[in-house]
Amino acid sequence: MQHIVALCGGVGGAKLADGLQRYLAPGLLRLIVNTGDDFEYRGLPICPDLDTVLYTLAGVSNVKQGWGRARESWQVQTQWRELGIDTWFQLGDRDIALHLYRRELQLQGLSLTQISRTLAGKFGVRSELLPMCDGPAPTTVLTDEGAMPFQEYFVKHQCSPVVRGFRYGAADSLDVTVPVRGALEDANLNGIILCPSNPYLSIGPILAVPGMRDLLLRARVPVIAVSPIIGGAAVKGPAAKIMRELGAQVSPMEIARQYRDFLDVMLIDESDAGLIVSRDANDPAFETAPILMRSPSDRQTLAMTCVNLLRRLRD
Amino acid sequence: MQHIVALCGGVGGAKLADGLQRYLAPGLLRLIVNTGDDFEYRGLPICPDLDTVLYTLAGVSNVKQGWGRARESWQVQTQWRELGIDTWFQLGDRDIALHLYRRELQLQGLSLTQISRTLAGKFGVRSELLPMCDGPAPTTVLTDEGAMPFQEYFVKHQCSPVVRGFRYGAADSLDVTVPVRGALEDANLNGIILCPSNPYLSIGPILAVPGMRDLLLRARVPVIAVSPIIGGAAVKGPAAKIMRELGAQVSPMEIARQYRDFLDVMLIDESDAGLIVSRDANDPAFETAPILMRSPSDRQTLAMTCVNLLRRLRD
Repeated sequence: MQHIVALCGGVGGAKLADGLQRYLAPGLLRLIVNTGDDFEYRGLPICPDLDTVLYTLAGVSNVKQGWGRARESWQVQTQWRELGIDTWFQLGDRDIALHLYRRELQLQGLSLTQISRTLAGKFGVRSELLPMCDGPAPTTVLTDEGAMPFQEYFVKHQCSPVVRGFRYGAADSLDVTVPVRGALEDANLNGIILCPSNPYLSIGPILAVPGMRDLLLRARVPVIAVSPIIGGAAVKGPAAKIMRELGAQVSPMEIARQYRDFLDVMLIDESDAGLIVSRDANDPAFETAPILMRSPSDRQTLAMTCVNLLRRLRD
Repeated sequence: MQHIVALCGGVGGAKLADGLQRYLAPGLLRLIVNTGDDFEYRGLPICPDLDTVLYTLAGVSNVKQGWGRARESWQVQTQWRELGIDTWFQLGDRDIALHLYRRELQLQGLSLTQISRTLAGKFGVRSELLPMCDGPAPTTVLTDEGAMPFQEYFVKHQCSPVVRGFRYGAADSLDVTVPVRGALEDANLNGIILCPSNPYLSIGPILAVPGMRDLLLRARVPVIAVSPIIGGAAVKGPAAKIMRELGAQVSPMEIARQYRDFLDVMLIDESDAGLIVSRDANDPAFETAPILMRSPSDRQTLAMTCVNLLRRLRD
């Protein structure tokens, strides 16, 4: 059986991951998930991207809200508010149940990789959820208002500070985990997909894990990316704003160049076909397809497009 | 202003504490509360007696159920059950909110005494809640099925094992806290009351904190106890069963003898008046009153009886 590895962050990445899980035979999808957003809140270990992927693949995510659980309740938080306790970060009861259980497993000595496997099992998810690394690897956003942890930038400040750069927590010391290395070196690996996730906040932290970029470079399978930018704007989140603030063009080309050393093809939206002419010889190749995922069937169609593209590139 | 100190454990003790709080002027009641039942569950710091007293004094306890919060919901626990995660210990959402906040304060470096003061403030409680000590002091129940932590004996085994004795966690190393010592040495102290709590599981652990018994012995104010035994049976809980298993008579006399070195008077129920004749010269004095608390007004009446008795003993 032939595996696919996908690198992803939160909502956009989780959608394509969901499409891939629907399209592939059970167990063939291995996801390497950003943990740069992870943080502790009220003593609970919060893993926003891992949980978004978990909930999405389990079919229990809150699609309307764009984060958290479907059928969520807010009793614990209501009690905090009644007692005048700060609640800047929203936590539903089902979310809290998950975080408390994750903490219990942490206290039992399980690694984040082992915990994610356990949680995937409990939620009946048939794909592998691999945290990008096992230790804490917090992303720091460097802004004109100073350096701040990702959640502070994203939730407290609603992405308003002007971004100057990033510091990735794993860059200094942590290494790729044995299962991540195994997934990328697997003889049965068929291809690697970078999901349409934020290049700075989701894919960037993954690529900064020591050893990760090298594994992608040495992979003997095609590597493709799906653009998170359509028509000069981000499908979701602050990607375009950040690109502007960093003085970059808001374009899939810009992102493709960041992945140039290992990327074979970037899939851009058919509406952006005009960009292909602006490629220069050193840029990765572009292909076009409808890449906006509005419905579950869009997810599966895009997954099929990606898998077929990988097949074509292999042949 | 003249203070009263009361030693107490869970439900029975909390009822008299509530009566005392209603009867005394605000701020005059200082409670020394058993922490021998405290334990960690799912990484949360659970303090059953402190919370029972807190909820009772704040008027938010679940009177019908006999433990936990009024208007409680069970969303977090429902999620654990849905995921097949063990839930042998019942935790409501409001309870969890409290435990998570307590844990956050712990992580900030606050002592249990400081945390209890903060929580009392948040709940608008006008009495001082003083944990018997600041470090972990778990009560171990020695049974014919082996030694077990209190919660295992009480919740998992429903008090069914035959008790041979107890080991109190504070006995070895911990000391009374500065606020507990301050409360018992206060020049404005008017009297000390041992609430009708289990002598082995609630009062026993408090008396085992190094320094505590000595402070009671040296107190220059009267010390009285309210019997948790009426008509040869415990008002609530396993006290009578344990007394039988330890070969003791199920009688207030037996309990009074445990407190003999520092106790001035034990208040027993008027229905037990016949016991007074069986006293010997070395036993503490007995007085009778209606001591069963069925209603809030019973609590206040008993509180008044206790305060008047202390006044009489002082004069």
